[in-house]
Amino acid sequence: MSASLPRVAIVGATGAVGTELIACLQQRGFPLRELRLFASERSAGRRMTYANEWLPSKRCARTLLSSSDIALFSRRRQPITPVCAAGGARRWVVIDNSSAFRMDADVPLVVPEVNADAIEGHRGIIANPNCVAIIAVVPLWPLHREFGLRRVIAATYQAASGAGAAAMEELRQATRASLAGEAFAPKVLRHPYAFNLFSHDTSRGSGSGSNEEEIKVARELRKIMQLPQLPVSVTCIRVPVLAGACHRFDGGIRAPRQR
Amino acid sequence: MSASLPRVAIVGATGAVGTELIACLQQRGFPLRELRLFASERSAGRRMTYANEWLPSKRCARTLLSSSDIALFSRRRQPITPVCAAGGARRWVVIDNSSAFRMDADVPLVVPEVNADAIEGHRGIIANPNCVAIIAVVPLWPLHREFGLRRVIAATYQAASGAGAAAMEELRQATRASLAGEAFAPKVLRHPYAFNLFSHDTSRGSGSGSNEEEIKVARELRKIMQLPQLPVSVTCIRVPVLAGACHRFDGGIRAPRQR
Repeated sequence: MSASLPRVAIVGATGAVGTELIACLQQRGFPLRELRLFASERSAGRRMTYANEWLPSKRCARTLLSSSDIALFSRRRQPITPVCAAGGARRWVVIDNSSAFRMDADVPLVVPEVNADAIEGHRGIIANPNCVAIIAVVPLWPLHREFGLRRVIAATYQAASGAGAAAMEELRQATRASLAGEAFAPKVLRHPYAFNLFSHDTSRGSGSGSNEEEIKVARELRKIMQLPQLPVSVTCIRVPVLAGACHRFDGGIRAPRQR
Repeated sequence: MSASLPRVAIVGATGAVGTELIACLQQRGFPLRELRLFASERSAGRRMTYANEWLPSKRCARTLLSSSDIALFSRRRQPITPVCAAGGARRWVVIDNSSAFRMDADVPLVVPEVNADAIEGHRGIIANPNCVAIIAVVPLWPLHREFGLRRVIAATYQAASGAGAAAMEELRQATRASLAGEAFAPKVLRHPYAFNLFSHDTSRGSGSGSNEEEIKVARELRKIMQLPQLPVSVTCIRVPVLAGACHRFDGGIRAPRQR
C-alpha cells in the first residue's frame, strides 16, 4: 500500500456505530494504509472483520492514536479530550461523533452535502452532527437556497438504536415481559418502553421545557446552515422501534419567503 | 324514573368505543329513562354492564331505534343512513361517531369545549369529529381567540386502538412473532406493525400525498373553528403503541398574528 494513504483509527470500534463505520469504509473502498481499531477496556480484544481480515481491537493508547492520520471517534459517553485531539507535533484529524465539540467556534460541524468547505481551517477536530440534524439539514439546505427558510418546525420518531445497543435490548426485553404480563423495571432508559413512547431520554435541564436532544438539533441546524437567527422548534420523541427512524419536517416548506 | 328523561340508544355497544360510551354515561350519572344497546348480528346477545345491571345487546331494529330520544352511533364501518336518521315523525337525535356526515353543511360538528352552540338547529344528526381533530381543537381554539391562528402544523403519534380492537390484537401478535423470529403476515393493517411505524392506514386517494386521516383532520378543524381558509398541515403516523396517543401541535403557538 502506498505510504501516502492515511492510517485510520476507529475509537469505539466494537460498538453499534463503530461496526457501521468499519462497514462503511469497506463498502466505499476508502483508501487507507492501515486500519486501527480501539475499544474500551471491557471490549478490547474483540476482533472485527474488515476486508476479509480479522482485526483485533486494542485499548486506546495515545501514542498509537496520535500516530494515525484520521481518527474516527464513535464513543458516546467518553468524548475525546482536547489534549488527545491536539495530537502533538503531527497534524492529524479527529472526526468526533460525540456532542462535546460540536458548538465550539473553532470546530467545523460538517454535513458533506451542505457545508463540506467548512472543514478548511480545522484545528484537529471535525465534529459530526446529531443524527436528527444530519437527516434534517440535507433537504432543508436546498430548500433554503431556493426559497429561504423562515422557520423550521420538526417532529421526530426516533428508534431505540439511537440510544445504543443496550436500549435496543431493553426494548426487546420490556416488550417480551409486557406480552407475558410480567413486570419489567427500565434500566437503560428512564421510561417504560414496551408499547410506549416518550420525550427523548436526554435531560430537560434548560428550563425551556425542551429536552437536550431538541436543543442540540436546533443549535446544530443553525450552525451548519450558518443561520444563527433561524427559529427552530423540534419535538424529539423516542418510539418503540428497534432501528431506523422517520423524521417529519415542515414549516420551511410551506412558508417560503415572500419575494 | 321520570318520563321526561331521554331514552338513550347505543349502536355498536359491544365494541371498544361502545364499551367506553356505556362507562361514560355511568360515570357521569347521565340522566336517562332507559338505555338500549344495539350490536351487529355477530355480537348481538352479548350482555354489557350498566349501573350494576346486565343489559342485553340486540340487533339494531329501526322501530326500537327511532323510538329512542338520543342514539349514539359508534360503528366505524356502517354509518347511519339518512333515512334512519330522519326518524319519522318523532324528533330524535343521532350523535354519530363515523365520518359519514361530518362535512355536511346541515350537520353540526361539535366539540363541546369549542362550539357547543353549533347544535342549535340540527336536523337530527350531530357529528362527532375525528379523534385527532378533537384533541387538537381544544387547545387551538383558546389560542385562536387570544392570538389568532395563522396556520396549524401538526404531527401525530397514533396508537393501534384507533384502528379498533383487531388492530390492537394484530400489534400484539406481530410483535410476539417478531420476538420469536417468526414470520407474520398483516391482516388488519396494511403494513408490518411489530416495532414499526407507518403513515396512517387510511388510503391516499387524494393525489396530494396526504392520507385520508390527514385530510379529515384539516377539514374538520376548519369547520369546527369556522376558519375555512386556515392552512393546516397534519402528518398522521400510526406507532406501535396499543392504546392512548400523543399529539404534537405547533405553528399556531409560535406564530401569533402580529397586531
